[in-house]
Amino acid sequence: MENDLSSTPAWEQYLSDNRERHLDELFEFLRIPSVSSLPEHKDDMRRAAEWVAGKLRAAGVPRVEILETAGNPVVYGEWNIDESKPTALIYGHYDVQPPDPLELWDTPPFEPDVRNDRIYARGSADDKGNSFMPIKAVEAMQATAGTPPINLKFNFEGEEEIGSPSLPAFVRESAELLACDFVLCADGGMWGPDTPSLTLGTKGITGCQVDITTAGTDLHSGMFGASVQNAVRAAAQLAATFHDSDHRVAVEGFYDDVIPLSDEERADFAEAPFDPTGHLDEIGATAFVGETGYTPVELNWARPTLDLNGIWGGFTGPGTKTVTPAEAHFKITCRLVPDQDPDKIIDLIESHVHEHAPPGATVKVDRGTTGGSRAFRVTRDHPAIQAAYETLGDLYDRDPYFVRLGGTLPIAATYQEVLNADMIFYSWGMPDSRAHAPNENFQLRSFDLARRGYCALFERLAREE
Amino acid sequence: MENDLSSTPAWEQYLSDNRERHLDELFEFLRIPSVSSLPEHKDDMRRAAEWVAGKLRAAGVPRVEILETAGNPVVYGEWNIDESKPTALIYGHYDVQPPDPLELWDTPPFEPDVRNDRIYARGSADDKGNSFMPIKAVEAMQATAGTPPINLKFNFEGEEEIGSPSLPAFVRESAELLACDFVLCADGGMWGPDTPSLTLGTKGITGCQVDITTAGTDLHSGMFGASVQNAVRAAAQLAATFHDSDHRVAVEGFYDDVIPLSDEERADFAEAPFDPTGHLDEIGATAFVGETGYTPVELNWARPTLDLNGIWGGFTGPGTKTVTPAEAHFKITCRLVPDQDPDKIIDLIESHVHEHAPPGATVKVDRGTTGGSRAFRVTRDHPAIQAAYETLGDLYDRDPYFVRLGGTLPIAATYQEVLNADMIFYSWGMPDSRAHAPNENFQLRSFDLARRGYCALFERLAREE
Repeated sequence: MENDLSSTPAWEQYLSDNRERHLDELFEFLRIPSVSSLPEHKDDMRRAAEWVAGKLRAAGVPRVEILETAGNPVVYGEWNIDESKPTALIYGHYDVQPPDPLELWDTPPFEPDVRNDRIYARGSADDKGNSFMPIKAVEAMQATAGTPPINLKFNFEGEEEIGSPSLPAFVRESAELLACDFVLCADGGMWGPDTPSLTLGTKGITGCQVDITTAGTDLHSGMFGASVQNAVRAAAQLAATFHDSDHRVAVEGFYDDVIPLSDEERADFAEAPFDPTGHLDEIGATAFVGETGYTPVELNWARPTLDLNGIWGGFTGPGTKTVTPAEAHFKITCRLVPDQDPDKIIDLIESHVHEHAPPGATVKVDRGTTGGSRAFRVTRDHPAIQAAYETLGDLYDRDPYFVRLGGTLPIAATYQEVLNADMIFYSWGMPDSRAHAPNENFQLRSFDLARRGYCALFERLAREE
Repeated sequence: MENDLSSTPAWEQYLSDNRERHLDELFEFLRIPSVSSLPEHKDDMRRAAEWVAGKLRAAGVPRVEILETAGNPVVYGEWNIDESKPTALIYGHYDVQPPDPLELWDTPPFEPDVRNDRIYARGSADDKGNSFMPIKAVEAMQATAGTPPINLKFNFEGEEEIGSPSLPAFVRESAELLACDFVLCADGGMWGPDTPSLTLGTKGITGCQVDITTAGTDLHSGMFGASVQNAVRAAAQLAATFHDSDHRVAVEGFYDDVIPLSDEERADFAEAPFDPTGHLDEIGATAFVGETGYTPVELNWARPTLDLNGIWGGFTGPGTKTVTPAEAHFKITCRLVPDQDPDKIIDLIESHVHEHAPPGATVKVDRGTTGGSRAFRVTRDHPAIQAAYETLGDLYDRDPYFVRLGGTLPIAATYQEVLNADMIFYSWGMPDSRAHAPNENFQLRSFDLARRGYCALFERLAREE
């Protein structure tokens, strides 16, 4: 493939000249604690939405609106320049995960700090840092060429980290407004700092909370503990039934709809370099533990899971309390693959919970309000995938890997279904970005590559049509 | 047996005349939040000790001292009246359990409230209410007869609810000071409001905390969760290994030193009336769950247990966090019977934990600093047991039951060993006192019976020698 960037484009100089200001702006964004799962941050959600809308307007986007949903608002933007050019819808999210446990952060999660050539803050990678990049690319093209070279729409949501409960309805109701040829997803990551990649699939998700009750009140373990059920023991016993000794999910029917991995897929997966020792060291784990018969990469990309996200019950303070607990709880989420159905999976889990309820324990499954999401797949011969492949090839001077994402972007399946638009992941998270964990970070190198990468992709997409 | 109380004694009139003042004083005691397991209540511990010392002095006890230990102080009192009379050492404790969960209390735990003919407050039964009664009995005898009729010593501790870590050393170092013929224990309970009982045994105790680590930090469940261990899952699986399907403790060697229940003991236990449905209703449980082959009474009084007192790990807030937790913890206490050794039991648990550690999980057993305690037994032909039996028979106009206590009074075994003094439980907790739980309470009827009961017992012990 020839290198199309034979002379330095004007936007490249602009991005370079405005680097410090762009960084300052991102830090402003990162300081808003827009944690969507915690009700006390409701006002911060709107503040973050308004901040994004302001930056879209400052970048020259002629139509920018904050659109209400049943939950946090959507930021919508539109810049139509030429009917004959393709229309890309850019997706991102302005909400972040809770920062706890706070004591494990080296610097406060909502006070961005630059060290080791990285920006440390909650949301620096997932997804404020990545969402910010296409906005700055548009600003650069507006400043240097007047407009972007293709039609652009923007759809930033504020509920990705709680499973996007409102976005599917919004997309369905706004199908005409959002109509596009494909979606560019400013959420996700690259294989590594020097190795670009394109993500051809994500997992689906579903989840619930299990509540166990064994008595009307916590009991003195000496007076009652010997002859009645203990809620913590019951919760542990129940939670321990979800996996068998091969680390497979032991919920009956869980794998019924799973499309088995083909030999071709397994061969593809093996191409991307993977350093097992480095992977374990990076996360501080001592061993791979997962479903027997699959490599860690296969497990992460293409096998479904049932994860226990939290458990609590009884006395958890310092010291000793000789109590027989009356209540205990645990939280489950599942990562799904094609063709598992989120609702059916929770039905199966609910049946499992009732079937395995320990004696003397009353169990309840709380399905919550966030709903679930199916897994997503796109093929490598999609024209926008091809354009992204070539652009990244130029930017890094090497071919990207085709990979998958073990995480979930619930909206990918919805866009595919409602807008008939496939999602092209175009985003700069790194394997060690520590998304969802303490000390989340974003590389300064990514900050530069991503802004340039979006400008170059827009130009290539304009030429290809 | 003849009724010795042929005319109303003077102390009885005194107790009646001073009832309201005695109640007010007890409320003052209950308002001190002397929670021994929480470091923030350190000052309250001393305040409670000083309060008890003040009341002993006010009751006329000539020697009252606050004696330091490695932990909270001991309140010591001594009133020797006649070498030829027996010497009783009265034991009680001024510390209480933590009040959490606060939201389940109908009125605040440290603001005593009288309703339904009961005093509601943390410590109302365990053990401030009960500890207070012998002090008021002494006050009554001092006011009406000048002195009590036997020699009395007092030994109130402030660490019972955390396993009495300092008292054994104190007793060993103070063996001469504490020398006595027997111990009257103002901690424990009666069979019911109309049915007196004498407790001939208590269980021992030991405990630990188990800490599980699977990674250096909480992980994004989509990026890593499929291929590494999950600390919550590992904790649940490990916690689920401690009991078999017969609800027996599955720790190897756990039952090795247990003296089996004799047919005689089982027959004794069956004598005390027990209402299974009422018992379950009272605690809001739906079924008995315990070691197969034993009645609930046998389990509560004479079979050892392993209790999971609390578990925690991962995300426990509202909503969803798709995290693969890196840490989880659970707390264990065991109730022991003769001849189990607390240290040996923790050794066995530690071996069990390491043997059953799930793959990819690092496990650690924290034995804490509270130590353990052996179980205690006394025979029914003990002279002071006989005196108490007769006194209670007169007070209630019916014979007491001989029972046991599923709970633990660590010091009973120590007094037996160091002072060669058996413990006589003489205390008015009720089965529905909700000791260690929200809405702990003490019956007003017990408030009257206990004060009279101590005066009458002192008189009978004086006559019997």
